[in-house]
Amino acid sequence: MTEFVPPLRDMQFVLRELCGLDAVVSLPGFDEVTDDLVSSVLEEAGNIAAEVIAPLNRVGDREGAKLVDGRVETPAGWYEAWRTLVDGTWNALPFDPQWGGMGLPHLVNTAVQEMWHSANMAFALCPMLTQGAVDAIAENGSEELKALFLPKMVSGEWTGTMNLTEPQAGSDLAAVRTRAVRAGDGTYLISGQKIFITYGDHDLTENIVHLVLARLPDAPAGIKGISLFVVPKVKIDAEGNPVGPNDVRCVSLEHKLGIHASPTAVMSFGDEGGAVGYLVGEENRGLEYMFVMMNHARLSVGVQGLAIAERAYQQARGYARERVQGRPAGSTAERAAIVHHPDVRRMLMTMKCQIEAMRAVAYEGAAAIDIAHHDADAERRAAFRRHYELLTPIIKGWSTELSVEIASLGVQVHGGMGYVEETGAAQHLRDARITTIYEGTTAIQANDLVHRKVIRDKGAGIGALIADMRALDGRLAEQAGADFAAIRTALADAVDALDGAVAWLLGPDGRDPVLTAAAAVPFLRLAGTVVGGYQMARAALAAATRLAAGEGDQGYLTAKVATARFYAEHVLPTARAWAHTATAGAAVTMGVADDQL
Amino acid sequence: MTEFVPPLRDMQFVLRELCGLDAVVSLPGFDEVTDDLVSSVLEEAGNIAAEVIAPLNRVGDREGAKLVDGRVETPAGWYEAWRTLVDGTWNALPFDPQWGGMGLPHLVNTAVQEMWHSANMAFALCPMLTQGAVDAIAENGSEELKALFLPKMVSGEWTGTMNLTEPQAGSDLAAVRTRAVRAGDGTYLISGQKIFITYGDHDLTENIVHLVLARLPDAPAGIKGISLFVVPKVKIDAEGNPVGPNDVRCVSLEHKLGIHASPTAVMSFGDEGGAVGYLVGEENRGLEYMFVMMNHARLSVGVQGLAIAERAYQQARGYARERVQGRPAGSTAERAAIVHHPDVRRMLMTMKCQIEAMRAVAYEGAAAIDIAHHDADAERRAAFRRHYELLTPIIKGWSTELSVEIASLGVQVHGGMGYVEETGAAQHLRDARITTIYEGTTAIQANDLVHRKVIRDKGAGIGALIADMRALDGRLAEQAGADFAAIRTALADAVDALDGAVAWLLGPDGRDPVLTAAAAVPFLRLAGTVVGGYQMARAALAAATRLAAGEGDQGYLTAKVATARFYAEHVLPTARAWAHTATAGAAVTMGVADDQL
Repeated sequence: MTEFVPPLRDMQFVLRELCGLDAVVSLPGFDEVTDDLVSSVLEEAGNIAAEVIAPLNRVGDREGAKLVDGRVETPAGWYEAWRTLVDGTWNALPFDPQWGGMGLPHLVNTAVQEMWHSANMAFALCPMLTQGAVDAIAENGSEELKALFLPKMVSGEWTGTMNLTEPQAGSDLAAVRTRAVRAGDGTYLISGQKIFITYGDHDLTENIVHLVLARLPDAPAGIKGISLFVVPKVKIDAEGNPVGPNDVRCVSLEHKLGIHASPTAVMSFGDEGGAVGYLVGEENRGLEYMFVMMNHARLSVGVQGLAIAERAYQQARGYARERVQGRPAGSTAERAAIVHHPDVRRMLMTMKCQIEAMRAVAYEGAAAIDIAHHDADAERRAAFRRHYELLTPIIKGWSTELSVEIASLGVQVHGGMGYVEETGAAQHLRDARITTIYEGTTAIQANDLVHRKVIRDKGAGIGALIADMRALDGRLAEQAGADFAAIRTALADAVDALDGAVAWLLGPDGRDPVLTAAAAVPFLRLAGTVVGGYQMARAALAAATRLAAGEGDQGYLTAKVATARFYAEHVLPTARAWAHTATAGAAVTMGVADDQL
Repeated sequence: MTEFVPPLRDMQFVLRELCGLDAVVSLPGFDEVTDDLVSSVLEEAGNIAAEVIAPLNRVGDREGAKLVDGRVETPAGWYEAWRTLVDGTWNALPFDPQWGGMGLPHLVNTAVQEMWHSANMAFALCPMLTQGAVDAIAENGSEELKALFLPKMVSGEWTGTMNLTEPQAGSDLAAVRTRAVRAGDGTYLISGQKIFITYGDHDLTENIVHLVLARLPDAPAGIKGISLFVVPKVKIDAEGNPVGPNDVRCVSLEHKLGIHASPTAVMSFGDEGGAVGYLVGEENRGLEYMFVMMNHARLSVGVQGLAIAERAYQQARGYARERVQGRPAGSTAERAAIVHHPDVRRMLMTMKCQIEAMRAVAYEGAAAIDIAHHDADAERRAAFRRHYELLTPIIKGWSTELSVEIASLGVQVHGGMGYVEETGAAQHLRDARITTIYEGTTAIQANDLVHRKVIRDKGAGIGALIADMRALDGRLAEQAGADFAAIRTALADAVDALDGAVAWLLGPDGRDPVLTAAAAVPFLRLAGTVVGGYQMARAALAAATRLAAGEGDQGYLTAKVATARFYAEHVLPTARAWAHTATAGAAVTMGVADDQL
């Protein structure tokens, strides 16, 4: 197994050359955040990822989380690693100093999260879910609720979970049946069963803060009758001190394809009469709160897709450099490392170029969140809010689909050794495979993109993005040479394909709910492919500018241009195919009768 | 877990409408083979697949094969299932009656193999490898060797293995180091270690016949110095009776991502001085013999890809029909089975249409083998030999790559339940993942295709196929309606894309070994996509012909046309992208310096 090396140089390149880290740290509210601070945070996080978290990845996969006498035990080393995060206040990175947060930009937190996930996806789900739970309470909870829970969740003394779905509900949260009854003292009594609860129980902390969707007896039917509650594993008094177990139980753990060390729990609330819960915000607005929070969580899962792809790439690259076998085409060497074989190189480059594209798009989304929250100008705040809301389903859906493809390529680079579990490549595929499913499947992301982000604003948001992408053409045209000519041609054609698909969505076919649902995933893949290509072109321009100025590492910057060219020749041509499938293909999706499937 | 239902109707459609079963069974040597016999063989095989082999799939995955005290134990039920195949002479299906074979066409055997693999891929590898070993001995062995080994291998009393690679060799068989020394009595003493030996040891039979590549002391270096030997696990006398253990040992089993019940062994030969081996054919011609046999084995693995995709599809379709969740787009129902959700339908159709395409191409390859072996006309024999040799790397590489993608889609259809092992969807993905690796990786297939099958004959073989595909255009033009218009347009464009890529390979760039190696896999994907589209168009025409005649099941035949249209709109558009990547993309594959990967 290859050791994880934090890709700090690529991360810094994206932060500085593509996502305007300078501008982000200059936003109001980040007065204490300096360039040096960001670099040292990333470096130190990289050390922890590589030295503390990554070494637990394999043992976590082998041992898995275990349910013993009704309590979940995490694998050896998990507790100590969690303490490292708590002691270093790593969980507090993006949060308000009022609650003990470090007040760093979301952009920086995203880069740190990427490294946690690359190092050990099963472990990193715990801080990821906890940050999501903090967001949900911080954005919607009363001051009292915030004071009671946030300090300990921000520090990581307590962790957080999301209890959304139930056996009969799946992705359809309108079908949630868990009940909440007003207890009379301002609290509620919660009863019901929740499934697929990540880190629903564990032995890392003395308390776990469950965010639970439930329905009041007098609530309206459907999604407008769902409320959000905080239900701690251990009941607390008004000062937050533990006063005994709440009526919450982990019933069982799922036996999963991957992320074995991340306990996926069936949780039972209220077997003994009702678990004490605290309402978040107002009654019956739970789903609305969840949706706000989900934008962050979905971006996090997109980053997770990027991260596991990066790890799979490092594993494959390491193996390809070490494994000596056969004579590469065109070589005179009797034997050589397989990295010199053209098809191995093709696979590695396919991985690499898409990882760089994903990172650029994900970080751009994170930067947009910072601007949307911190910019002094209300119009800019609103514009960037729309921008990250547009990017969110793309980042989640596209990056996670790619993560599965990339992790699978990683196995292929290893040949037979990739199929042997000890090598580690197969684990990345098994782990990656969940990312297109949880926090909303790719289809759910795609429908969000098509309906809420494209059709609802009549193409305004995506039209602005398309205009930005077209505006790059002039700058690409100024660059000499075959690389930029190829990038420019491929990008222009791909943007046209996207533009055409948008026009189709905004035309008469876009008013047919069956057609748009059938078109949604291909459209999302199209959008991701093109937006990724745009960022790769920007990266190539940034590199060319530095090269022309004689600045920086020439080899590194030259490779950036060549990687963008590779993306243009190997990935962007799929845009036309996705566009065709999204539009012409939608009409035939339901063409075969049910009983003839 | 959904039960396996043999897809007899689809198989019969391909056999009769697309692959000319009538013509095949009329070939010399198949005098006893009637239409009725074929149907009853398929039906009975389907029963065994569904009732005997498929129920062991899950338990095999859970228990796996185990090495206990130096002997491999197969999971519960394995032995009895193997006895069922032996007692029914199922292993003997395609072989010469001289050795106890049933003398059925390879085409029929392929359909039976498909069902074995769908039912239980880990189990079906044992008969598959045994048939491959029989082929190797039957085609190249002396009469004495054949008499000694074939009757018991054809019956399945003994099984066969392929011992090719070694730790340092991987796919590069020139690097094989296993030694063979002439014993003086006509036999040889073999010593060395072989890895990745499927069913290298097991408890199903009293003897195992290993085919082993090894090098004589005076052999030339490289691939021209490799000989092929038969090395039985148990030594035998001149009558084939067991006389005691040979010097062969199973050292360990791999812990793999999937096919847990298929023992993947590290085999050690000659630890006690040398394992007794029998030369196959002539010294130093071993690799040549292996290549002849590999064409069959590669076709078998392609069929395995098809088969596991079919099983994953059945699993996903079954779940989608049962799982009630949410309101489908455009529906007024409050809740419905997810099969009615357009994106679930899109995924199922993506699976279904490519499975039908793969089956048609694989069976066409199998029929070509029959014609190549049995036709009375020597020119036709030669032409069909070239045809199946051209199709073989496509069938193997393209079908197995699709099998991974399709099994992954199968997981996605299940949502969260797909990630839970008990559901069974994840096992299909884990099992499928090996198919692009063993019997030659996709890159190896692709280089075979590009160099030996396209460039070597200056495009004659693929040119003939392209001409056949173009010749269909007139028949497609005769059909009225939007379905055929779409199929015709998409196929014509895809064939043009293939033709352009072939021209590129035959032009100056095709003489650059680095460019062709970089282009090979995209070219293979292109070729598979287009050849599959051609077969789908033929299927649509066959269905339309029957529909026009008022024959057959109207619903079934209408669905065949709609499925071909789906393939045309959702799959064929990728042909242009693959063509671009194969040609323009090849030049940039090595563009990033090694140290910048």
